[in-house]
Amino acid sequence: MSSVITLTTDFGLSDAYVASMKGIILDINPKATIVDISHLIEPQNILQAAFTLHMAHRYFPNGTIHVVIVDPSVGSQRRAIILKTPSAYFLAPDNGVLSYVFDELCPAANLTSTQISTKSKLRNIKRPLNAVYITNPAFWYQPVSTTFHGRDIFAPVAAHLSTGLAPQEFGEVIDSIYTFPIPQPYYDSDGNLVGYILHTDNFGNLITNIKDSDVPREESTIKISNQSIHGINRFYAEKRGLAVIIGSSGYLEISFSNGNAATFLGAKVGDKVKIITQKRE
Amino acid sequence: MSSVITLTTDFGLSDAYVASMKGIILDINPKATIVDISHLIEPQNILQAAFTLHMAHRYFPNGTIHVVIVDPSVGSQRRAIILKTPSAYFLAPDNGVLSYVFDELCPAANLTSTQISTKSKLRNIKRPLNAVYITNPAFWYQPVSTTFHGRDIFAPVAAHLSTGLAPQEFGEVIDSIYTFPIPQPYYDSDGNLVGYILHTDNFGNLITNIKDSDVPREESTIKISNQSIHGINRFYAEKRGLAVIIGSSGYLEISFSNGNAATFLGAKVGDKVKIITQKRE
Amino acid sequence: MSSVITLTTDFGLSDAYVASMKGIILDINPKATIVDISHLIEPQNILQAAFTLHMAHRYFPNGTIHVVIVDPSVGSQRRAIILKTPSAYFLAPDNGVLSYVFDELCPAANLTSTQISTKSKLRNIKRPLNAVYITNPAFWYQPVSTTFHGRDIFAPVAAHLSTGLAPQEFGEVIDSIYTFPIPQPYYDSDGNLVGYILHTDNFGNLITNIKDSDVPREESTIKISNQSIHGINRFYAEKRGLAVIIGSSGYLEISFSNGNAATFLGAKVGDKVKIITQKRE
Repeated sequence: MSSVITLTTDFGLSDAYVASMKGIILDINPKATIVDISHLIEPQNILQAAFTLHMAHRYFPNGTIHVVIVDPSVGSQRRAIILKTPSAYFLAPDNGVLSYVFDELCPAANLTSTQISTKSKLRNIKRPLNAVYITNPAFWYQPVSTTFHGRDIFAPVAAHLSTGLAPQEFGEVIDSIYTFPIPQPYYDSDGNLVGYILHTDNFGNLITNIKDSDVPREESTIKISNQSIHGINRFYAEKRGLAVIIGSSGYLEISFSNGNAATFLGAKVGDKVKIITQKRE
Repeated sequence: MSSVITLTTDFGLSDAYVASMKGIILDINPKATIVDISHLIEPQNILQAAFTLHMAHRYFPNGTIHVVIVDPSVGSQRRAIILKTPSAYFLAPDNGVLSYVFDELCPAANLTSTQISTKSKLRNIKRPLNAVYITNPAFWYQPVSTTFHGRDIFAPVAAHLSTGLAPQEFGEVIDSIYTFPIPQPYYDSDGNLVGYILHTDNFGNLITNIKDSDVPREESTIKISNQSIHGINRFYAEKRGLAVIIGSSGYLEISFSNGNAATFLGAKVGDKVKIITQKRE
Repeated sequence: MSSVITLTTDFGLSDAYVASMKGIILDINPKATIVDISHLIEPQNILQAAFTLHMAHRYFPNGTIHVVIVDPSVGSQRRAIILKTPSAYFLAPDNGVLSYVFDELCPAANLTSTQISTKSKLRNIKRPLNAVYITNPAFWYQPVSTTFHGRDIFAPVAAHLSTGLAPQEFGEVIDSIYTFPIPQPYYDSDGNLVGYILHTDNFGNLITNIKDSDVPREESTIKISNQSIHGINRFYAEKRGLAVIIGSSGYLEISFSNGNAATFLGAKVGDKVKIITQKRE
């Protein structure tokens, strides 16, 4: 088993919260290697955390333990869970923050995803999965607070898991978890592919929910914020100004060479992006 | 001995300062595990650093070495010290930045703390303690600069300490250090408990200096910024809007569910908070 | 060989980019110790990254592998390189980001540096050097994206290098790399030394390109932003208000005790600083 533990939270970098979790982990497993994915998730933004984890997890060693704490309902009846997949363990509140990795790593047999509305609510999903509801207090930091389960429950459970204990040691096996439907692009009545902006990165690149495999093979024009961008480029510096490329994670993104596409376009997460193929224009 | 070394500074995350300290530490002890507590302490804010360290230190393994560099008087006659407690080592300038951990870990026999004014100045405190004034240049990075003792003195001393050397190797034993009096809540002439805001966290939660054990057992109303909040809740999501809870570190805090109490109230560090018990209202 | 790998990037701390590189490194060499130098380099600011690396690298253990990714031309024909020096390995795009460390660690025999204009363009420099153009895809993460070579090329090459492979395993030996001329202070027609601000740090200290050894021995007055500062101080707290000191890295800097010189002066990177010796005033 890998002893790598990653942390993704909305705790920020000013307070002692992240360090408290690391102290707990190192006290239990001094050999753990702790890696920060991001602590700058917007407070309570579950979908942003889900997407960030989705972008990072696949590059970690097999067996890595990913802990995700964006937990507005901490202290209530929401469950704390462990999801085991062939490549990794995920520890998180059962609030949809594992939606992307669940969809990626525990695929359904017959999901027709283009029918899913982006407005859908949290759903309880039953698919073949290997998950545990964390209920065994023997491994928790005592006394358990009602407001910081990242420190009192998730950190010590992750640390003990990294020493080789089986997930079942920490609670009861469950057969479903809550997830958000992953927002998928769709074809409008004119036959054009419509997606939207999932994420704006540090460079102002606008990452959409349109995957490499969704992109039409014909020559295309991309419409966003009243701008039209012709063709898809291979890398940022290939074209001056606005450009559309397939980003490093396989999603279509809009960039601005040596500049900031988000600022230039005044675009933000949730904005629509349309792909029009030449023959339809 | 643990080989965990934590860092708490006001260096920020843009410059090379923090990394310089880490390089020095790893050169001396390649097996050291370095953990950042926070580098976003407001420049020269000694009390904020003292409080942040207080929030984090107790979760680390026994024997952890905590290095705290908020050091506006670097290069002057202020002393560099090592404070040894039963649970940890603390390395810092002797400027009051260890006040909270000193009060917590080196308690006085007969301190009547409610009498201490929050306006008090730095005091030289004699209590039973185990401390060293760092004077032995044999372990320092040469040439020692006059402006960055974090890198040239504290980092190499922490690293050598983590390899098993005794604190006395680094200088002369001292019998007092400087501390700020820890600001305590008090009862006003109407018999109401009055505290103030110590810290605003990343979520906008307002953490007060009123401890769990200070809170009256009777049903209470909390007054802050011309708002009244009735009752104390158990967790953030239990109540919509403004709520008062006992936070994860045992201090009373004011929160706003799925929102930001600091922004909502326009409240800031130093603002008063009053607890009025029902019978007195 | 040291297994310390440092990272200096313009990726910011919100996105999954930095963590993706760390995951790749730990998958290849679980024993690597990864240290962040800074991820808050301004997007595409090659000179800032070059200077930050220059400030930090010398404090790391011999053999440390420094990876620097500020790479606006990623995906184009710019080369990915390894520069080996007596003290460390540097992996970076060949875009001038190694200019400072190259000048420091691979000195030319007869460089008259005061003649170099700060306006000069990127130059291809031939000096005795030990460098490799990374061309061997055997060590890359596949499929290699066109937009994130930090993850797909530099991270795995750094990790394999840290396991003991020789630089030549990763590509072909080259005899020159691109560098920017390091901006040097000069004497104006009145015989006064003129430099400029290289960097503003977290405290608002203005770090100039004037080195300790450049400073005249006579008593001096420093002119910046229409202000005159008399004399050079030894440490920040020695003088109230504006002061000039020799900073911890050997460069002249302008500080403001318990305040922010950059804000006070309205000064920024690129602004001129003039040293006038008393006899010339």
